[in-house]
Amino acid sequence: MKRATLEELANLVDGTVLGDAAVSVSRVAPIDVAQDGDITFVTNPKYIKALETTAASAVIVSPALADRCSKPGLVCKNPYLAFAKILTFLSVEPPEVKGVMAGSHVSTTADIGADVTIYPGCYVGDNVKVGRGTTLYAGVVLYAEVEVGEECLLHAGTVVREKCRIANRVILQPKAVIGSDGFGFAPDGSRYFKIPQVGVVVLEDDVEIGASSTIDRAALGVTRIRRGTKIDNLVQIGHNVELGEDCILVAQTGIAGSTVIGNHCTFGGQSATNGHIRIGDNLTVGSRGGVTSSIDGNQVVSGVPAMPHRDWLKASMTFPKLPEMRRELSRLKNKIEKLESELKEKE
Amino acid sequence: MKRATLEELANLVDGTVLGDAAVSVSRVAPIDVAQDGDITFVTNPKYIKALETTAASAVIVSPALADRCSKPGLVCKNPYLAFAKILTFLSVEPPEVKGVMAGSHVSTTADIGADVTIYPGCYVGDNVKVGRGTTLYAGVVLYAEVEVGEECLLHAGTVVREKCRIANRVILQPKAVIGSDGFGFAPDGSRYFKIPQVGVVVLEDDVEIGASSTIDRAALGVTRIRRGTKIDNLVQIGHNVELGEDCILVAQTGIAGSTVIGNHCTFGGQSATNGHIRIGDNLTVGSRGGVTSSIDGNQVVSGVPAMPHRDWLKASMTFPKLPEMRRELSRLKNKIEKLESELKEKE
Amino acid sequence: MKRATLEELANLVDGTVLGDAAVSVSRVAPIDVAQDGDITFVTNPKYIKALETTAASAVIVSPALADRCSKPGLVCKNPYLAFAKILTFLSVEPPEVKGVMAGSHVSTTADIGADVTIYPGCYVGDNVKVGRGTTLYAGVVLYAEVEVGEECLLHAGTVVREKCRIANRVILQPKAVIGSDGFGFAPDGSRYFKIPQVGVVVLEDDVEIGASSTIDRAALGVTRIRRGTKIDNLVQIGHNVELGEDCILVAQTGIAGSTVIGNHCTFGGQSATNGHIRIGDNLTVGSRGGVTSSIDGNQVVSGVPAMPHRDWLKASMTFPKLPEMRRELSRLKNKIEKLESELKEKE
Repeated sequence: MKRATLEELANLVDGTVLGDAAVSVSRVAPIDVAQDGDITFVTNPKYIKALETTAASAVIVSPALADRCSKPGLVCKNPYLAFAKILTFLSVEPPEVKGVMAGSHVSTTADIGADVTIYPGCYVGDNVKVGRGTTLYAGVVLYAEVEVGEECLLHAGTVVREKCRIANRVILQPKAVIGSDGFGFAPDGSRYFKIPQVGVVVLEDDVEIGASSTIDRAALGVTRIRRGTKIDNLVQIGHNVELGEDCILVAQTGIAGSTVIGNHCTFGGQSATNGHIRIGDNLTVGSRGGVTSSIDGNQVVSGVPAMPHRDWLKASMTFPKLPEMRRELSRLKNKIEKLESELKEKE
Repeated sequence: MKRATLEELANLVDGTVLGDAAVSVSRVAPIDVAQDGDITFVTNPKYIKALETTAASAVIVSPALADRCSKPGLVCKNPYLAFAKILTFLSVEPPEVKGVMAGSHVSTTADIGADVTIYPGCYVGDNVKVGRGTTLYAGVVLYAEVEVGEECLLHAGTVVREKCRIANRVILQPKAVIGSDGFGFAPDGSRYFKIPQVGVVVLEDDVEIGASSTIDRAALGVTRIRRGTKIDNLVQIGHNVELGEDCILVAQTGIAGSTVIGNHCTFGGQSATNGHIRIGDNLTVGSRGGVTSSIDGNQVVSGVPAMPHRDWLKASMTFPKLPEMRRELSRLKNKIEKLESELKEKE
Repeated sequence: MKRATLEELANLVDGTVLGDAAVSVSRVAPIDVAQDGDITFVTNPKYIKALETTAASAVIVSPALADRCSKPGLVCKNPYLAFAKILTFLSVEPPEVKGVMAGSHVSTTADIGADVTIYPGCYVGDNVKVGRGTTLYAGVVLYAEVEVGEECLLHAGTVVREKCRIANRVILQPKAVIGSDGFGFAPDGSRYFKIPQVGVVVLEDDVEIGASSTIDRAALGVTRIRRGTKIDNLVQIGHNVELGEDCILVAQTGIAGSTVIGNHCTFGGQSATNGHIRIGDNLTVGSRGGVTSSIDGNQVVSGVPAMPHRDWLKASMTFPKLPEMRRELSRLKNKIEKLESELKEKE
């Protein structure tokens, strides 16, 4: 277990020490369960009161809360980021380097870098390259001619099919599939003829792919996930998709084939896009939203077809009133007919 | 193939024999395909007529139908449960105990109980515990310090990541992933900094997890699935979720992070919840329903945001009439304007 | 790299040569990136102009465009199908036959056909049959008594559970699960008793199953996917489903248990059906559509409950106007009340 003083941690997270800089901590914990020896953090104003009662030894707070904190601690512009960095520093060990372990199957033509770990049950095909410091947990399969960069973590049971390329510091959660065939068939009468999927997938630096997510290889060319994009579990990325940098795709989202997405877009859970469309930078799609046609960025949309999020919220709140609206329409119609006939009688 | 008399089966299911207690059966079959030697069951009133024509040797019926049944059989309060128990008795053999098979990779520091079977291609890490009578099918991966209880079935290719704990009689269908990283990132300018997920997953007794479902480990603390809860295929459970006892989650459902769900809740297929909400006991969410905020139990809801199921049904039936309603609104507006001007003329 | 003349390719695709039949090509490429030595194709009228500027050596066109093409090429009724066939001819090699490789685990009672390849890390159980020319990539698990036909491709990490049967030329993408337990439980008070799933899955000839899709075995009897049906990634097929011939199921679709679907149906992404319903031939369900009750074929439906696609489109376009419609209703009601009171005054 590592231990660090507030002074050391202030340097790590570019923060200011509050109180005794020699106080030391060894764990990060939520404010309501933190114990002596722990550092905790407050980002949500509703937890300010807990600052007074927490048993934590130290607290990470924003400048706005610094006055209200009688504990030792750290003042940081972004307490949540500071929490993440301190948690990483105290809790995360680089995976132990174990080399090519017995029970793995590595082709004699594979090029394995220094400090690589390959667990039992892995299969590394012909002409594969694995970069320095990368770890393949048990049961990872790399088909022929795959390239994996440096300091990647490929968790148990991930599969990367032939010729796909993974850059540096990429994380694949268990059972992620990279390079499965795109879903392409040409109708031949009533039957379907398989269109060979001879393209590849490229995952750029710092991409993370969630458990059991599937990234299809291109029919021709490349399915590309750009630097820093994070994909959650059970997400489907169709063939020839291009995803921009620093995007966030929450679980069970589906991006249909050949769609091109800008940088810094966010997709809520179970959202989706049609294929062959273009999406601008900084688009946020609400959970279950469906983007059916090309759309500019710098906005928040929801619903199907996607509309401004506020419009969707209002329409969704009105939706349960539909039956009453229909009855009201019918009542008004009757009243109008009565008025019409009364007016006619007067003539 | 086992064979049992009605007398034996009546004891097994706490039922009453109808007719000859010495009649014996060896298989369970649906009423329309049952043959001589089979026992069948009737729970759906529309199959009562089939009681007269079925070739089955015996029938399981409810007390209400006992008079209408001329076949030998069993009278049970819950024929469907009796069917399940008899099918289990006749058809399900405990998996053969084979020990640690050649081609599996078991750490010398692992603690493997009696009567455990570990198939080829499994990887069992350091300090793992596996309880008595548990079976790991081919290609199961248990990371370091995992604990698995007694009489569990872990089907082929399941992965349990470091330190997660599985209790007794738990079933994991193929490719289930337990303990993948939760999806947590702290924004650092336009980039994302990974929040280490240092918590665990706990699956309590008698939990079942479906094929390719993913249960994320907690950021800090525990993602917990309580006793008896059954999760179907391709379901996503976010980090720090707490699921109550005896819940049912149908396929492709997604529960977002930190949500707390009571006992005996049911989620229909492709349903979802937001994160950080609380759900009471005995809530039923219809297929594709989306629970967006905390909600009391003991009700049936559907739609997004979730509303009482009946309201959703009525609103959904009205939805296709929206364009006609809009035209009607326009027509009524015109009529009213006409009436208004006619009335003005009269003045 | 293969190379073929237009004359050879015309025979392959049943087309007519345009220009010099001796022109030869070795690659297929999209019209905007094609180089010398490539053949490209035009199906989308908006790319007609590109015919004049493309660097491709040859072009596949429809009869309607033959006059507008000054390049050598092929005239085909179905250029997209011709493209698929030529791409297959030039780019797809049958997988290399490698036999039973070291590091795989094949039961001595398994029946392995000629020209079969079994990669390291595979597990082939007792009494399994694998037909001529089939390839099992690394980490495939076949439980006892599974039957796999001829010329199948089972990609890395696929699992086929006990007794399931796969016919000829079937393709399983990585991590597909065939024969997981159906999701069936009988309530026993507030707890659930597992109903054993003792049926099987049958995949007929030329079926393809996507990455991480899950096909549940029947409770009793058979879950059947008929000849030529193609299933995309992350799709759930419930127990006892019968899917017709030549169906297309796009990613993340869910078909609930015991539903029977006709031939040549298409399900858009994230669509779903209820269980225990019947669906006619040639039904198309739009993305995210939900079929809740039995429905005739030969139509296109969308929405939940599914309605004719045009009706859904119109209703969906009207949905954002709901709040304004409600305000309009309120305005009209006020006007009518005013008219009513004015008319009363006149009496």
